Amino acid sequence: MSTTEKVLARIDADAADSLARWMDWLRIPSVSAQPAHAADCRRAAEFVAGQLAEIGFTAEVRDTAGHPCVLAHHPGPGGDAPHLLYYGHYDVQPAEPVELWTHPPFEPTVVEGPHGPRVVARGAVDDKGQVAMWLAAFRAWHAETGTLPCRVTALIEGEEEISSLNFKPFVVAHREELKADIAVISDTGMWDIDTPALSTSLRGIVYMQVDLKAANRDLHSGIYGGSALNPINALATALGRLKDGNGRVQLPGFYDGVRDLSPEQAASWTALGFDEKRVLAGLGLSEPYGETDRTALERVWSRPTCDINGIWGGYQGPGSKTVIASEAGAKVSFRLVPGQDPERVAESFKAFMRANVPADAQLSFQTFGCGAGIEIPTDNRFVTAAAAALQEEYGKPAVMIGCGGSIPVVETLQQELGLATVLMGFGLEDDQVHSPNEKFEVKCFHKGTRSHARLLGKLAGR
Amino acid sequence: MSTTEKVLARIDADAADSLARWMDWLRIPSVSAQPAHAADCRRAAEFVAGQLAEIGFTAEVRDTAGHPCVLAHHPGPGGDAPHLLYYGHYDVQPAEPVELWTHPPFEPTVVEGPHGPRVVARGAVDDKGQVAMWLAAFRAWHAETGTLPCRVTALIEGEEEISSLNFKPFVVAHREELKADIAVISDTGMWDIDTPALSTSLRGIVYMQVDLKAANRDLHSGIYGGSALNPINALATALGRLKDGNGRVQLPGFYDGVRDLSPEQAASWTALGFDEKRVLAGLGLSEPYGETDRTALERVWSRPTCDINGIWGGYQGPGSKTVIASEAGAKVSFRLVPGQDPERVAESFKAFMRANVPADAQLSFQTFGCGAGIEIPTDNRFVTAAAAALQEEYGKPAVMIGCGGSIPVVETLQQELGLATVLMGFGLEDDQVHSPNEKFEVKCFHKGTRSHARLLGKLAGR
Repeated sequence: MSTTEKVLARIDADAADSLARWMDWLRIPSVSAQPAHAADCRRAAEFVAGQLAEIGFTAEVRDTAGHPCVLAHHPGPGGDAPHLLYYGHYDVQPAEPVELWTHPPFEPTVVEGPHGPRVVARGAVDDKGQVAMWLAAFRAWHAETGTLPCRVTALIEGEEEISSLNFKPFVVAHREELKADIAVISDTGMWDIDTPALSTSLRGIVYMQVDLKAANRDLHSGIYGGSALNPINALATALGRLKDGNGRVQLPGFYDGVRDLSPEQAASWTALGFDEKRVLAGLGLSEPYGETDRTALERVWSRPTCDINGIWGGYQGPGSKTVIASEAGAKVSFRLVPGQDPERVAESFKAFMRANVPADAQLSFQTFGCGAGIEIPTDNRFVTAAAAALQEEYGKPAVMIGCGGSIPVVETLQQELGLATVLMGFGLEDDQVHSPNEKFEVKCFHKGTRSHARLLGKLAGR
Repeated sequence: MSTTEKVLARIDADAADSLARWMDWLRIPSVSAQPAHAADCRRAAEFVAGQLAEIGFTAEVRDTAGHPCVLAHHPGPGGDAPHLLYYGHYDVQPAEPVELWTHPPFEPTVVEGPHGPRVVARGAVDDKGQVAMWLAAFRAWHAETGTLPCRVTALIEGEEEISSLNFKPFVVAHREELKADIAVISDTGMWDIDTPALSTSLRGIVYMQVDLKAANRDLHSGIYGGSALNPINALATALGRLKDGNGRVQLPGFYDGVRDLSPEQAASWTALGFDEKRVLAGLGLSEPYGETDRTALERVWSRPTCDINGIWGGYQGPGSKTVIASEAGAKVSFRLVPGQDPERVAESFKAFMRANVPADAQLSFQTFGCGAGIEIPTDNRFVTAAAAALQEEYGKPAVMIGCGGSIPVVETLQQELGLATVLMGFGLEDDQVHSPNEKFEVKCFHKGTRSHARLLGKLAGR
């Protein structure tokens, strides 16, 4: 029985303990976007630092300009085993609208589903559940061998859900301490519950808030209607022009640098036989919304988007109030693909809004995120090892997929540390990430843990 | 000294008492739009019924399907004095945003202003202050003569700010009891603090809420952006098309029946020398917003409008949430002018929205108001008497103006009771009606009270 096999047996034996630790972490409402949860974010950081210290890491909670980072080191066995940088995040999205949850978002609950038990909680999968997998793999290796098979640095941040604004400076400031051979991140998905996947691209994001001020006070819509600027009409008019009838984003220069799919990639994605209709039907929708001349996987993996994530203004209460509000606002985000310049997109959005509102509309902007889309290099031994580990665990090859989401850290690690990344994640399409009733399948968690253990064994030749 | 002159002297002598009664009424937060204030609405009704009972009215609080109405009768002296129906409303607009008030909205405060003392409170002018004027005039006549010079019916409703939905059925059900020779309403404005006015037209209103539902849950904008319908983008796109670049409302048939100004009316309005730039400058604005080819008074008095009064959807909290919401909504109102059919405008809006959103967008509508714009006949002895009363009180002729606001009751009284109306109001342009820090000048209140007393005297030949 190889060491790896012993470790896998240990993972099976300790499954209940790993589940309990994962759920304890989920009980901490570490919502990075909401200042009221700042202390919870620190608690979530201290929790994971404690978990790492238990298994021989020198683990510290390091302050940043925002929520703290956990930085931990394990020397491994020495020798020529590679040095891996595991990245994850302990912060979670806001749970709102809380009334739509079947269970309290921060009281993790095990529920039976079609694939067996699942854990329902905010952060169940994104990203506490995915981090808890590699923590469990580390624990099993440590229990079986008294050490880890490779040298490991663990970096767990607290601002991924708010675009990692303070993370880049932290990485720059700790460049030496973060040196490694490869980064390993579990924050992406499988193709389906039986088919493992490695992600080869990520979309970037520009996330902005625009506020529009008009008159210096709310006005009676009878006395002033037809004379005074209505900021909601003005905002809706400008935002309504962001896309044309074919779903094309109208910002000047928005598509500069966007490349079409290579025939090979187009063919391999087609081969996946993605059934968008089925996915949309599961959401109560019947037709895709986006560029009308692009295929389904293209639209979410290799084409940029524009989504209004929030909007507000005027009277939102019951009944009627005949008011012309003094201001209105919206949160608008753009998912970007490799080749687009986030800074230019942000500037183009500002210019577009200014050009599409009346002269009296006073606009102000806040930027909550600005990261480029990236390609993940796959021609290295680490991706090869990950693919092999997944194939052994699942008995079928891992598929190479794109990811419509954004993990700004991947770009940061590439730019600042010259580090390539392995994106090996175990989420499913129906995990309701960022939505009410977020969940993670215990089966995905368990086999994901085993896959991480296998990857460590392979890279150490054990 | 004529009886009227004695009554005017009494009004001057009792000014402090009249101010106190007015402020007591303002302390009752009778916000009709907000169910939490239902009991306050009834208290406000009982308060005014009590005031009327004190001076010889048989006054009752009558239930409706919504907030109650006050209906009170005074026989007057008998003989051939005319029978006047005074209408007003005790309900007020919501006070939100409360943080913008310099004084608590329901703790009326006397503040010194450029025209002397003013009362700051929600409802100070609209409409408690304006009703309190004719109540004070009644009290003075009753004190001096033991009765009123005319037969008077007083009707004070509690749903004017929510479009009087239950008022029309009430009027129909009490048709006999509401018979009178003329209706008198103080819910409009003066031209300026030294120039009295009679209003000769009112805009109607259609006020609707539209809700747009998309996916059956909130979605991650990275995983679904480019594939799943975004209800906020869809709503903004449709609402953004409501007006063209020249401020023309785009609903099919919207302008059907809208008449251009007669040359005479255009000339008389031009003669008023309205300085829109000055008014807009007071609001921090520099240019008008509305139909680009119409004059200022035309746009607010005789042209229909479309204003979005409220909008909401997605994440409105601090920072960022990368979500595609499952729904969004807005409150949209149209001010109408004589000739437009409110029902047709409401249907046209629904059809317009359906035609401008994707197939998957599930729309639902609520109507909070649907009343036509109307002309006020001025060729009757009551308007003549009102003009004379105002000229005597102010020492200059009353100007005939339009009113951009809506008083649905005027149409109801005309249609159901065949009653013409005298619109004699004493509000000023800067009273901040429906806004934070609503106020009413004590000078306007006092001279308005005297004007109402004069009108009663004139109609009774005393």
